[in-house]
Amino acid sequence: MSEAQQKPAVVLLSGGLDSATTLAMALDDGYACHAVSFDYGQRHSCELAAAARVAAAMGACEHRIIKVDLSAEAGFGRSALTDDNIPVPKDGPAAGGTPPTYVPARNTIFLSLALGYAEVIGAMDIFIGVNAIDYSGYPDCRSEFVMAFETMANFATAATADGERRFTIHAPLIDMTKAQIIRTGLALGVDYGLTHSCYDPSKNGLACGRCDSCRLRLAGFAEAGAVDPLAYQAY
Amino acid sequence: MSEAQQKPAVVLLSGGLDSATTLAMALDDGYACHAVSFDYGQRHSCELAAAARVAAAMGACEHRIIKVDLSAEAGFGRSALTDDNIPVPKDGPAAGGTPPTYVPARNTIFLSLALGYAEVIGAMDIFIGVNAIDYSGYPDCRSEFVMAFETMANFATAATADGERRFTIHAPLIDMTKAQIIRTGLALGVDYGLTHSCYDPSKNGLACGRCDSCRLRLAGFAEAGAVDPLAYQAY
Repeated sequence: MSEAQQKPAVVLLSGGLDSATTLAMALDDGYACHAVSFDYGQRHSCELAAAARVAAAMGACEHRIIKVDLSAEAGFGRSALTDDNIPVPKDGPAAGGTPPTYVPARNTIFLSLALGYAEVIGAMDIFIGVNAIDYSGYPDCRSEFVMAFETMANFATAATADGERRFTIHAPLIDMTKAQIIRTGLALGVDYGLTHSCYDPSKNGLACGRCDSCRLRLAGFAEAGAVDPLAYQAY
Repeated sequence: MSEAQQKPAVVLLSGGLDSATTLAMALDDGYACHAVSFDYGQRHSCELAAAARVAAAMGACEHRIIKVDLSAEAGFGRSALTDDNIPVPKDGPAAGGTPPTYVPARNTIFLSLALGYAEVIGAMDIFIGVNAIDYSGYPDCRSEFVMAFETMANFATAATADGERRFTIHAPLIDMTKAQIIRTGLALGVDYGLTHSCYDPSKNGLACGRCDSCRLRLAGFAEAGAVDPLAYQAY
């Protein structure tokens, strides 16, 4: 077993296609993967069950759900994902700018909590499945953001205070298309039937097939020449 | 009323001496101050009551307590402030390096949540009462950290995606001694009797007088030639 095989990493795992692929890549790199998911008041909270399934099936050494309430009731909201009064766009993206499914500072908050957890368990590597190609136009999915977060993280903690160690924020999907992500995951044995991508699932957890996230997923499978094993609602 | 007088700001308010002074300075600058405190599983949770008292007495337009569990039970811990099994050092700092009262990535997590809340309410200014002089040796109290966080924040959100607006992280105490902070607050009318600084208060909320935080506070009052209005435990 190489040294890299024994290194712990924190992997942000939403339960979706991108983060499942990221976990597969981190495991393939030989990391002992501590998967963390966030219960933040999302309307698609069934993704947390998907994250648990994915973490267990893929061999994460741990799966932890961190609670941080970003709902409208907690004073946050302002997103279609956390406020039932804001509809999730269907059948095409909302016109112009940042989409209504954007959650204010979500990836900053999630990476900050992952950073704290990494310091607690002694991990210097954090994996996040953001990508800047086939995505929904979120500012916190760009490489500039990831690089700035990494720089900040290395000033933020006791773990790097002696200047000998550095945190690395790995975003292995950042420049991949959805089709490339799916091909990579399939080659690594990811069972995408365990994942959940839909922003607005039915009460029994079926994907809508019409939100941005479902559309990007379905287009990615089509472009990859693969079949999405998920069940979708009839419409 | 000047334009500045109408600008909203988010002010991190722990309920301690430093954050109360920071709130006074932000109010004096003319900001409409939205105070936020964090219920993170701290053993000195009576600071939340102090924060509420301070916010109300000083005229913050809002006081919000955000829950984010950084306790040992939630998998965090590793700090004397959040883990009852780790004692708070008394009668002098612990030897060498980062003190055991350090909470992994705490200011990063708190600033990230403040950033999300700022975006929700349309504020571009965030105030934090960190200082790098008379403090306990925490890495996330240095100006390098605050500057790196500000840089990251301006890549992180939709609010700055058009490049027209920028977040500013104000750390007005960063280069002040504790005595200077106290003199500044007294000149602005801060009632330090409402604040709470102790890391390890008694069950009835009395400050211990012996932890790092109490010792820095008492030394600051002495150097400022002022009287600390707080009651302390007899020992």
